Amino acid sequence: MPSGKIPVGILGATGIVGQRFVQMLEGHPWFELTWLAASERSAGRCYGEAARWQLKTPLPLRAAAMQLSVAAPDGAPKVIFAALDAAVAADLEPQFAQAGHAVISNSSALRMHPQVPLVIPEVNPGHLKMLECQKWRRASGGFVVTNPNCSAIGLVLALCPLHQRFGLRQVIAVTMQAVSGAGYPGVPALDILGNIIPYIAREEEKMEEEARKLLGGMDQGGFRPAEFAMSAQCNRVAVEDGHTESVAVKLGTAATAEQVLAAWQEFRGIAQQRALPSAPTQPVVYLEAGDRPQPRFDSGLDGGMATSVGRLRPCGVLDWKFTVLSHNTIRGAAGAALLNAELLKSEGYLD
Amino acid sequence: MPSGKIPVGILGATGIVGQRFVQMLEGHPWFELTWLAASERSAGRCYGEAARWQLKTPLPLRAAAMQLSVAAPDGAPKVIFAALDAAVAADLEPQFAQAGHAVISNSSALRMHPQVPLVIPEVNPGHLKMLECQKWRRASGGFVVTNPNCSAIGLVLALCPLHQRFGLRQVIAVTMQAVSGAGYPGVPALDILGNIIPYIAREEEKMEEEARKLLGGMDQGGFRPAEFAMSAQCNRVAVEDGHTESVAVKLGTAATAEQVLAAWQEFRGIAQQRALPSAPTQPVVYLEAGDRPQPRFDSGLDGGMATSVGRLRPCGVLDWKFTVLSHNTIRGAAGAALLNAELLKSEGYLD
Amino acid sequence: MPSGKIPVGILGATGIVGQRFVQMLEGHPWFELTWLAASERSAGRCYGEAARWQLKTPLPLRAAAMQLSVAAPDGAPKVIFAALDAAVAADLEPQFAQAGHAVISNSSALRMHPQVPLVIPEVNPGHLKMLECQKWRRASGGFVVTNPNCSAIGLVLALCPLHQRFGLRQVIAVTMQAVSGAGYPGVPALDILGNIIPYIAREEEKMEEEARKLLGGMDQGGFRPAEFAMSAQCNRVAVEDGHTESVAVKLGTAATAEQVLAAWQEFRGIAQQRALPSAPTQPVVYLEAGDRPQPRFDSGLDGGMATSVGRLRPCGVLDWKFTVLSHNTIRGAAGAALLNAELLKSEGYLD
Amino acid sequence: MPSGKIPVGILGATGIVGQRFVQMLEGHPWFELTWLAASERSAGRCYGEAARWQLKTPLPLRAAAMQLSVAAPDGAPKVIFAALDAAVAADLEPQFAQAGHAVISNSSALRMHPQVPLVIPEVNPGHLKMLECQKWRRASGGFVVTNPNCSAIGLVLALCPLHQRFGLRQVIAVTMQAVSGAGYPGVPALDILGNIIPYIAREEEKMEEEARKLLGGMDQGGFRPAEFAMSAQCNRVAVEDGHTESVAVKLGTAATAEQVLAAWQEFRGIAQQRALPSAPTQPVVYLEAGDRPQPRFDSGLDGGMATSVGRLRPCGVLDWKFTVLSHNTIRGAAGAALLNAELLKSEGYLD
Repeated sequence: MPSGKIPVGILGATGIVGQRFVQMLEGHPWFELTWLAASERSAGRCYGEAARWQLKTPLPLRAAAMQLSVAAPDGAPKVIFAALDAAVAADLEPQFAQAGHAVISNSSALRMHPQVPLVIPEVNPGHLKMLECQKWRRASGGFVVTNPNCSAIGLVLALCPLHQRFGLRQVIAVTMQAVSGAGYPGVPALDILGNIIPYIAREEEKMEEEARKLLGGMDQGGFRPAEFAMSAQCNRVAVEDGHTESVAVKLGTAATAEQVLAAWQEFRGIAQQRALPSAPTQPVVYLEAGDRPQPRFDSGLDGGMATSVGRLRPCGVLDWKFTVLSHNTIRGAAGAALLNAELLKSEGYLD
Repeated sequence: MPSGKIPVGILGATGIVGQRFVQMLEGHPWFELTWLAASERSAGRCYGEAARWQLKTPLPLRAAAMQLSVAAPDGAPKVIFAALDAAVAADLEPQFAQAGHAVISNSSALRMHPQVPLVIPEVNPGHLKMLECQKWRRASGGFVVTNPNCSAIGLVLALCPLHQRFGLRQVIAVTMQAVSGAGYPGVPALDILGNIIPYIAREEEKMEEEARKLLGGMDQGGFRPAEFAMSAQCNRVAVEDGHTESVAVKLGTAATAEQVLAAWQEFRGIAQQRALPSAPTQPVVYLEAGDRPQPRFDSGLDGGMATSVGRLRPCGVLDWKFTVLSHNTIRGAAGAALLNAELLKSEGYLD
Repeated sequence: MPSGKIPVGILGATGIVGQRFVQMLEGHPWFELTWLAASERSAGRCYGEAARWQLKTPLPLRAAAMQLSVAAPDGAPKVIFAALDAAVAADLEPQFAQAGHAVISNSSALRMHPQVPLVIPEVNPGHLKMLECQKWRRASGGFVVTNPNCSAIGLVLALCPLHQRFGLRQVIAVTMQAVSGAGYPGVPALDILGNIIPYIAREEEKMEEEARKLLGGMDQGGFRPAEFAMSAQCNRVAVEDGHTESVAVKLGTAATAEQVLAAWQEFRGIAQQRALPSAPTQPVVYLEAGDRPQPRFDSGLDGGMATSVGRLRPCGVLDWKFTVLSHNTIRGAAGAALLNAELLKSEGYLD
Repeated sequence: MPSGKIPVGILGATGIVGQRFVQMLEGHPWFELTWLAASERSAGRCYGEAARWQLKTPLPLRAAAMQLSVAAPDGAPKVIFAALDAAVAADLEPQFAQAGHAVISNSSALRMHPQVPLVIPEVNPGHLKMLECQKWRRASGGFVVTNPNCSAIGLVLALCPLHQRFGLRQVIAVTMQAVSGAGYPGVPALDILGNIIPYIAREEEKMEEEARKLLGGMDQGGFRPAEFAMSAQCNRVAVEDGHTESVAVKLGTAATAEQVLAAWQEFRGIAQQRALPSAPTQPVVYLEAGDRPQPRFDSGLDGGMATSVGRLRPCGVLDWKFTVLSHNTIRGAAGAALLNAELLKSEGYLD
C-alpha cells in the first residue's frame, strides 16, 4: 500500500459500531480502511448510501464513496474489524480466521471461547498468548481477538487497579445504559422517552462472566477466571451515549480512600507505556466534583477512550462505592477493538 | 362542618407535593380541605393564581378559588398536612404542634427526631404510640407524624415482607429518581436532558437511616433501628414521575424465589385490614413481565399507591436482586401522608 | 349477543392504534369487542401474548384472552374497525366491504377515494350519504368510512368553526408531532432524543388534501374540496402523545378576536347534539393561559377527544395565528373511528 | 500586552452565553481574555468556582483561575463582551460605553435603539456607521454594538440572500427552540420533558422587529426597517442546543428552486471576504438529505457558526417553504458577538 499503512476492513460496517470504526480509522497513523462489508442486501451499494450515518462528525468522503463488499474472506484485507450481531459473528468470524485473517471483534459470539482472548490492553495484554493455541492460527495464521461488552469495559478498567493493589472479593454493579448500546434502530422512542427499562437481554450475564475472565489469569490449562463474586443489574435509560454505573466493592485487603484514589490515578498499562495511537493518556480519571461523572458531559473524555470515576465513598454493606462512566460505542466498542489492533501490531501479530 | 368531614389544611400548598395533596383531597370521604397556606409573598392571593398547577387532572375549582392564608397556626384547622422545605418545616411544624394541631408531615426535618414517629401504615403502625411521649401532645394535644422520603418508601414496602418472614441482613439499593422528586422548578432541563446526575443531596443518608427506623422496633427507651446493613446510591434521571430502584438483599434465613414472591403477594397491613380510603388493595405487586416495572407505565398502579416489584433473580453477591418502583409524589409523598392521616383517624387521634 | 350490544372486530389489533381501539371499546355502551385480527404470524395466538401493550391503563382481561383471527372476512363480525398500514388496507378493506362488512377505517389508503367519505362527525356528517354510491354497498351492503390523519383532525376541528362563520382563504400549519403517531416500534430513540426530525413521509400532502375534502362539499358529481389555500410543514418531536400545531389563517370576512373565540366556544356538531357516547362535550376548547395548550398536560382533555386551542393573536402576514393540540391516537385515530361508528349507528347504518 | 493581542472582558461571564464567550475566546488569534465580571455576589471569587460550567469542552484553566471583578468600568479592558439580562444591560451597557468602552453586546436591551447598530457581518456591516452618531462615541470614544436574538439570526442569514436577489414580501416563521436559549437554570425539566411550550416571552416581537431592522437600510434619518410582512410563532422544545424553524416566504420576484438554492450557496459576506477568524466558510449551507437539518446532528456545523437549511419546496400559500437551523448559543449569541468584534477590529474601531 503506497501509504505504508496496514490495510484493514470492517465487517458490519453500516451499524452504529461499524460507523464508529469508520470514524476512528479516518486519519489513523497505522491503518488504512480499504474494505467494507455489510449484509447481503447492501453489497454492491456505496457506503454513503447504504449507511444511515448517525454520528456528529461528517461521514468521511473516501469511505462514503467505497463500495460495500460481500461479507466473505475472498478479497478482504488481512486485518478485519468485526461489528456483527452475535449470531452472524458465530458463523463469519471463524470463517475469516480460518482463511488467514486477523479478526479483531467487538461481537459477543466468541468472547468466552476457551481459546479466544478477551482483551483490554491496560488490563490483560498477556492473554494474547492464547492466540498460539487457536486452531485457525496453526492452520492459516488467522486468529480471533475480542474486546468486552460495552457495559463491562468501563467497570473492569475501574476495577483493575483495585484488583491489582488490594484484591477484589465482591462487586455489585448497577448500570444505566445509553440507547446507542442497542444499535440502530435499536430502542423504540416509545419505550424509553421519560422511562427506564430495567432489563437488557443477556447483559448481566455478559458483565459477570467477562469481568472475571478479564481480571483472571491464564496458564497451560487455559484461562482461569478471577474468583471474586460479582452481580450486575442492567437498566436502559434515555441517554444517547455513555453507560453510567453505580458500583460497590469489597476488597481483599483494606484500603483508605487515598489509596483507592491513588490506585486509579497511577494506573497505566501497556497501551500507555507504548503510547498506542488510540490509548487515553490516563485510562481511569477521577473527577473531584461531587455530582460527576455525567454522561452528557463526561462520556467524551480523552476522545471517549478514558473511563471516568467519581463519588468514592464508604459503602455500608461492602467497602467502597463509586460511580463509573464510559463511552459505550468508543471505549466500549470500536475504540476498544482499535486499541486491541494497535496492541496486536505492537506485538508483531499483524506483520 | 356541614359535610360532617374533618376540616384539613395544607402548609406548603403551592409546591409539587402541596398540589398532590389538593388533588388527592378532592372528594375525599373523610377530609375536607378548608385552609391553604404558602410562603408569605403568596398570602392573600387565591390558590389558582399563586400555584403553577403541574398535574394532569384539572385544578379543582373550589381549591382554585380559596385564598392563601399566612403560614401560622391562628385560624388553621386542627389537622394540617405539611409539605414544606426542611428548613422551614423545622421551624413551623413544632409551632403548629405546640398550638394543638395534628401535623402530618412529608418533610424531612423531624423524621429522625427521637419522639416523632416515622410511619408507613402497612409497616410500622405501632410507632404511633410514641405520640404520647411528644411534649406538644402533653402540652396542647398537638403532635407531629412523618412519612419517609420518596425514595425510601417504595424500598421499605418491598423490604418489609422479607424482613418479617426471613429477616434482613444486608441491603444495597441504587435509585434512578424522577425529576418531580426535586420539586418545582427543581431540576433544570439543561442538567437532565439526555443525562444522569449521580448525586442527590442528603438522599443516600435519608434512605439508609429511615429504612432502619421504619423497620426497627420501639420500646421504653425509644425507637430501636433495625440492625441490617444498608447502602444506597442515588441517581437523578430524565423521568417525570416514579422512582425506580435496583435492589440486592441478603436475608437472615434462606428463602426460595417462591417464598419471596409469596411474601410480597400475601403482604397486607392495617391499611388494608381497615380498608383505609387511600390504601392500595395490595401494597406490593409483583409484575411477571421480564422487563417491568417501568416508571412510565407502572408508576400509577392502584392510583399510584401500590409499589411494584419485578425481575426477582439470584444475586451473585448477596441472596436476591430485584427492581422496585414507586410513585414519588403519590405513595412517596402526599399519598403517604394522607394514608397516615387515615390511620390516625382510624386510631382516634383526630377526634 | 346476550348483551344486546353490536359485536365489533378490529383489523390490525396489535399496533398502537389497535390497542387504543381495545382500550376505548372496553365497557362501551353500544359495541362489544368479539373479534381481533393481526398479521398472519400472530393468528392463533392470544391477544395478550401477541400485543406488546403500550398503554398506561391495564390491558382488559377479556381482550387479553381473545384469540387472534386470520385477517379475512370469514367469521368476522359485521362491524370492523381497521387500523392497518396503508398498503395492507388498500387490499383488505375493499375485501371486507365487498363481503358485507361496515369497515370503519383509520388508515390512509382510501381516504381520498372518490366514493369513500372522510368524516369528522362535528364537521361533515353529510358526507356519509356518499356511502350509497359505493359499489360494495350496492353489492353486499358493506361499505368503507374513513377518518382523517392524526395531524389533520385537530387542525380541521379548529378550522371548521372559522370556516363556517367567516370562510377560510389561507391556512399555514406547522406541526410538532408525537412519536406515537409513527406506530410501534416507529421512531428509533437514537433519532429523536434531544432532536427534531423536520420530515414525516407523505404527511404534509395528507394534511393539505384531507383538510380540503373535510371542509368541502358534496354534490351529484362527488366531493368538492374546499377552495382555501393550504400549506403544511410537519416535524417530529420527542413527545409521547399529542400533536401540537402552530397555525396561521386568513379569513374570508374580517373577524375580531372575540368573534373567533366565540366561534370556537359555541361550536357543536351532530356528535354533541345526539350525545354520542364518545363525543367530547365541547369539541374545541380555548385555553386562556398564555402558554397553553401543552401536549403533556392538555392532550388528554375530555378523555383525549377534545381539541384544545390557545394563544390567539393577530398574524403579521395572514389574519390570525394560534396553537392547536389534539391527542393523536385518541381523537386522531381510534377515537375518531369510534365516533364515526357511533354516528353510523345513530344514522341506522349499522342495523 | 505581551501577546500583542487585544485584551477583552466579559460582563455576565458565569451564564450560559458568558461561558460560550470564555470557550470561544480560548486561543483566539486577536483577543485575549483578561477580565471577567458577574453579579455582585460572585465578585472576588475565582471563575472556576463561581461558574457552574455547562459546556462539553473543559473549562480553560487560565479562565478558571481568574478572579471575578465587580461589574463596573473601573479597571475593565476597553473591549467588553456583554451577556447580561436585558434589565441589567439597560443600565450597565450605557455606563461602560460612556466610560469609553467598546461594548459588544448580546443582550436585547439596546438592539432597537435608534443609534445602536444591530449587526450580522454577512448581512448589514454598513450599519456600523451609525456608531459615529452615538453620544457615547462622541463623548469618550465608547460605543455599543449588538447582535440579534438567537432565533432571529439563523432566520435572517437564510433570508438575506433571498432578500438581496428577489426581494422579500412576506415571511412566516415557526420556531422550535432549544432549552439553552433560556439560560441557566432556565427551563425546569418538569416543564419540558416530553412536552412543548408554545410560548416564549417577548420572542415573537423580537424576531419580527429585529429581522426588519437587520434587512433594512440606513440613511441620514436613521435605520429604515425593511418593509416585508413578518409573523413569528415561537415554541420551546426538549432540545439542548439548536433552534429549528419552519419558514415560508413570498418573494418580490419569482424564483425557481435552483435560483433559491444558488442564492444560498453563493452567499458570502464581508466576514468571509476578510476571512475573519470566527467566520464560517459558507454562512448558509443547504443540506440535500430530505430529513435535515436536525439539531442534534447539524447544530455544530462549521463550529456552530454556519446556518443550515433544508427541505426547500413550494408553499401552497406563499411561494417557498424550508427548514432553518442555527446554533443558538454559538451563532445565535457568543459567536455572533465575537464575529461582530472581529468585524469592528477589521474596520479599525478597536484600535
